[in-house]
Amino acid sequence: MDERLARTIEAIKASGADWGLFTSPDGIAYASGHIVSIETGPSPFAGGPAIALVGKHGECGLVVTNLEAETPSWADMILTYEGFSYKEPTDIFANYCNATQELCTRLGVGGTIGIEQNSFPMSLLPLVSTQRHVSLDDAFKRQRMVKTATEITLLREAALTASAGQRALIEHGKPGRSELEIFADVRLAMETSAGERLPLAGDFISGKERTSAFMGWPTNRVIATGDPLICDLAPRVKGYWGDSCASVMLGKASVGFEKQFNAVKSALDLAIEIVRPGLGIGELDQKLQAHIAAQGYGYAHHSGHSIGTSVHEWPRLVSYETERFKKDMVVMVEPTSFDPDIGGVRLEFMLHVTEIGCEVLTDFEHRMSI
Amino acid sequence: MDERLARTIEAIKASGADWGLFTSPDGIAYASGHIVSIETGPSPFAGGPAIALVGKHGECGLVVTNLEAETPSWADMILTYEGFSYKEPTDIFANYCNATQELCTRLGVGGTIGIEQNSFPMSLLPLVSTQRHVSLDDAFKRQRMVKTATEITLLREAALTASAGQRALIEHGKPGRSELEIFADVRLAMETSAGERLPLAGDFISGKERTSAFMGWPTNRVIATGDPLICDLAPRVKGYWGDSCASVMLGKASVGFEKQFNAVKSALDLAIEIVRPGLGIGELDQKLQAHIAAQGYGYAHHSGHSIGTSVHEWPRLVSYETERFKKDMVVMVEPTSFDPDIGGVRLEFMLHVTEIGCEVLTDFEHRMSI
Repeated sequence: MDERLARTIEAIKASGADWGLFTSPDGIAYASGHIVSIETGPSPFAGGPAIALVGKHGECGLVVTNLEAETPSWADMILTYEGFSYKEPTDIFANYCNATQELCTRLGVGGTIGIEQNSFPMSLLPLVSTQRHVSLDDAFKRQRMVKTATEITLLREAALTASAGQRALIEHGKPGRSELEIFADVRLAMETSAGERLPLAGDFISGKERTSAFMGWPTNRVIATGDPLICDLAPRVKGYWGDSCASVMLGKASVGFEKQFNAVKSALDLAIEIVRPGLGIGELDQKLQAHIAAQGYGYAHHSGHSIGTSVHEWPRLVSYETERFKKDMVVMVEPTSFDPDIGGVRLEFMLHVTEIGCEVLTDFEHRMSI
Repeated sequence: MDERLARTIEAIKASGADWGLFTSPDGIAYASGHIVSIETGPSPFAGGPAIALVGKHGECGLVVTNLEAETPSWADMILTYEGFSYKEPTDIFANYCNATQELCTRLGVGGTIGIEQNSFPMSLLPLVSTQRHVSLDDAFKRQRMVKTATEITLLREAALTASAGQRALIEHGKPGRSELEIFADVRLAMETSAGERLPLAGDFISGKERTSAFMGWPTNRVIATGDPLICDLAPRVKGYWGDSCASVMLGKASVGFEKQFNAVKSALDLAIEIVRPGLGIGELDQKLQAHIAAQGYGYAHHSGHSIGTSVHEWPRLVSYETERFKKDMVVMVEPTSFDPDIGGVRLEFMLHVTEIGCEVLTDFEHRMSI
């Protein structure tokens, strides 16, 4: 049994449930290994979200459309329903509800059902309305906090994919090119590294105004010498998200940018030095915020977040977090600085918490100019 | 009042409802003008899908996260809730439910609520459980079948964006390059044309085996002279989908590929010739299937689909469809041929049904080789 399925069962039991019914892309990936396609929104050939159903005795079933019949997963029962049909009329919504009902019947679902409350569709209510239902959210996020060996391998691969993109930025980020042109080379490097198209979160922004906002996707803005640039790349590879952020100045870094960059780089170095099992997560955020503040900057943002089948997982690196770092957590650390005369700087690495400290899974060097 | 809001109200009334509560990205875009970000899946900072709420007397409200507070739309009441927070703990799910409840209270929601049944989350059930609820799906799809003048402008722009990608294929599709490399140039051309990153559906596949399957995204496969290639590009631009499909052979087309290409090209030409108000949609599919069959090929697929805020809308071009073409419908026509010794060919254009025939919104020429 995959260790993630075992932990999913622990979450179901800890929630007081007999079964868990998963409907979010990240929850389904964790509980069943099925990777939901997300890049084009909900499929017009689906009657609702894919469903992974897990029983406390190890049962694992899936409901997906006929277009996804070949999906890899560790489910031992996959029911498909007709979504795409050209020969005769079909009621996709009814097919979806019927397939889910059928899966519940075949697996013998009863007792208390645990659900993901953000994503549970009303259409499935008849499946749980005669039974008790509870939220799995709290127990499930706790089980997912510490990563399994398989997950660490997958996150390492995702971090290396993001790193391939960051190295492409150094190679292809030249004045006179548009954000979209450079971004195309960066994305191609990641997709070539992974061998496939990848869902991609993040930011790609240049210039004082855009980097001051810290968020945004690339445009036709042409990059000039002296522009700051933020390149935040979060590709999803085999269901696991990588993440990373570089901030550079095109050409030679100005004195002000250098100061800002060094403040953030030393904060990131500080995190790499002190992150280890037992350190308070809130304490890390406070230390990084204080480190940046001592150098005259501030950031109205978190210092990072955990990562896995969701790009942002609990616990996030925020000052009020009371959890402590544990061995085999994988976290993004992303201190930030802001100078209204220059723009924003954010530097982000992926750290794997080890027995005695942490290992950097990201594989590129931050540089202040390209 | 935007004509789409007026038609949404018609759908609400036709469903016997007093209010419509929209939760799908395409439904929200149509009913309120708010464009939901889809490329990275559900936001970890959202407590559920965005909500557009429309009343039969013209009320229009939105619930979105604080990260989307600046979203353009024609809603006259936008309630945001805290999703991203770094200062103190927040219950995103409770914030979402409360904001939705608040919007219902402020707008005075009561009576019968119409919902989109594929995407309505259980969390919103308390809003409707004391009231009657009905499905909007059938009436809503009927209202959306004929496009408004604004929609035709937007679909034309999306078609031109897709066409920019197809012209880039002709320029950059060279033997010795990988599918992903060519795809990067094609995507860049579309994104440069639109000035932003674009959600993109479609297929990009080469070689006999891959084009025989008709579906798939690009890989590191290196394209060789004599390979067939299918390039299906469906970008979403300002909330509206473009679509298009080219099939080419690299280098000189073989005799077999030429025959296959000509069969499909003449089917597409036939569609352009005969599509007009009054023609049966099922009849068009039958004619195209027969035209292809008469030349020794067949296709186990529809002949196309309507398009708008969803990439596949009703009515689809399938033999059992009983609707007839109407002025200002916009449809994709995509006849296909398959030869197991060569691979697949699919050619697709976007057609706007006019008073006397149809106008091709796609702006590139199909060629059998590049």
